[in-house]
Amino acid sequence: MKRTAFFISDGTGITAETLGQSLLAQFETIDFVKLTRPYIDSVEKARAMVQQINAAAEKDGNRPIIFDTLVNQEIREVLAESEGFMIDIFSSFLSPLEQELASSSSYSVGKSHAIGQSSKYMERIEAVNFALDNDDGARTQHYDKADLILVGVSRCGKTPTCLYMAMQYGIRAANYPLTEEDMERLQLPATLKQHRHKLFGLTIDPDRLTAIRHERKPNSRYASFAQCEFEVREVENLFRREGIAYLNSTTFSVEEISAKILVEKGVERRLK
Amino acid sequence: MKRTAFFISDGTGITAETLGQSLLAQFETIDFVKLTRPYIDSVEKARAMVQQINAAAEKDGNRPIIFDTLVNQEIREVLAESEGFMIDIFSSFLSPLEQELASSSSYSVGKSHAIGQSSKYMERIEAVNFALDNDDGARTQHYDKADLILVGVSRCGKTPTCLYMAMQYGIRAANYPLTEEDMERLQLPATLKQHRHKLFGLTIDPDRLTAIRHERKPNSRYASFAQCEFEVREVENLFRREGIAYLNSTTFSVEEISAKILVEKGVERRLK
Repeated sequence: MKRTAFFISDGTGITAETLGQSLLAQFETIDFVKLTRPYIDSVEKARAMVQQINAAAEKDGNRPIIFDTLVNQEIREVLAESEGFMIDIFSSFLSPLEQELASSSSYSVGKSHAIGQSSKYMERIEAVNFALDNDDGARTQHYDKADLILVGVSRCGKTPTCLYMAMQYGIRAANYPLTEEDMERLQLPATLKQHRHKLFGLTIDPDRLTAIRHERKPNSRYASFAQCEFEVREVENLFRREGIAYLNSTTFSVEEISAKILVEKGVERRLK
Repeated sequence: MKRTAFFISDGTGITAETLGQSLLAQFETIDFVKLTRPYIDSVEKARAMVQQINAAAEKDGNRPIIFDTLVNQEIREVLAESEGFMIDIFSSFLSPLEQELASSSSYSVGKSHAIGQSSKYMERIEAVNFALDNDDGARTQHYDKADLILVGVSRCGKTPTCLYMAMQYGIRAANYPLTEEDMERLQLPATLKQHRHKLFGLTIDPDRLTAIRHERKPNSRYASFAQCEFEVREVENLFRREGIAYLNSTTFSVEEISAKILVEKGVERRLK
């Protein structure tokens, strides 16, 4: 069975999309075509959406599911005339919240991902810059300013995790690749030792590491299974010996790895 | 008035946090303390949460607001004994969806940000690598593989936007800084001309640019208001002359800029 799902918003669409994806993930047997439609902020755009929704209904032979976070009543009414099945995210929760908070909702459009204070913006950009400047062991002299330092073999997922934590949470995360040399000395490099409490290890299944490295440098010794297996084993031994908390990233998304690291290290997000 | 809000989940907490933030943004007069508590996946952890919630209730003199996406009924019941005001995100929508889809929800824990297929993971990592490898005009020979190429003056927000689009949507976005030299020649560099349809311009208010550059290189000519104003004016002229769509990033978040670019260029996200 095929169903189309629309995530419709007067802003970025991130809230409708995030909640919609979570709910649809609970229906594993259905094949959804997912379409995000942000900035539907006029009656004209809503009318064009109705056309798209009705076309999908006809094509699928099933009415589409609409997840919307529209605040404007007039625009919502236009959409409600479509053949879609509407899940009204905001209206379900705003009135109980208004009652509990004894306060009126401002019903303001596109509020949630608006920029807020510019200090928040700067903090985030600084965190992204920090991740970029302190990527891959490039510099180690700023580790005193880091919230976290991820360690692990080359291509185990350190960089995307640092960037995600910077972007999403404003966390300043550096990362340092453990090389063969570090493994042979059987100890942590001195630059890391003094920041031991900030360290978190990432590891990965040798099979997956081989595949990822192969994309990067096909048929190299670096990408060989033997080399990957050796490095992963040695690094895991190092983590255990040095008492560094670590996580196998193989079966987790960047979101999951990041959330687990913050819980494990007790680091609070800086963007709220 | 101060209120504490908890975003509680058995997974990453991203859905509870995203929806909760959106809803709370509608109550601008209230000062919320926001706490995300991911991986609450056992009765023991739920009991510890109840302690935290009740402590916040006592401290604030107001009951905390709880946004939860817990699927396990037993864990939810423990939480329901707390003094918080609960907004049950999933239970509100899952039964109407079950009816509409004529299908049962799997009620599986932490589903939404789980890794899914590994091809999706690889696509995302590849997009992040693409953004990093093609950042700041470093390389231009891979522009044929780009979905988008952002252009603008140095430090106007190109890199964070490219990284966000890669991480969130799997979009391959390169970026190219327009330098004084490009402006003096009054035309687009040849490397960009051949990919004109992929170009999108970012611009920024000179005041904000001055502040951002000052963080980077204090008291330099590069960070002077006169230089920033000159560059911004020239680049905006270039965009207009060459018919390149552009956006002033000053008052928008990275989420908003990214969503607007995708709409404007008609680019569909690659991760769904």
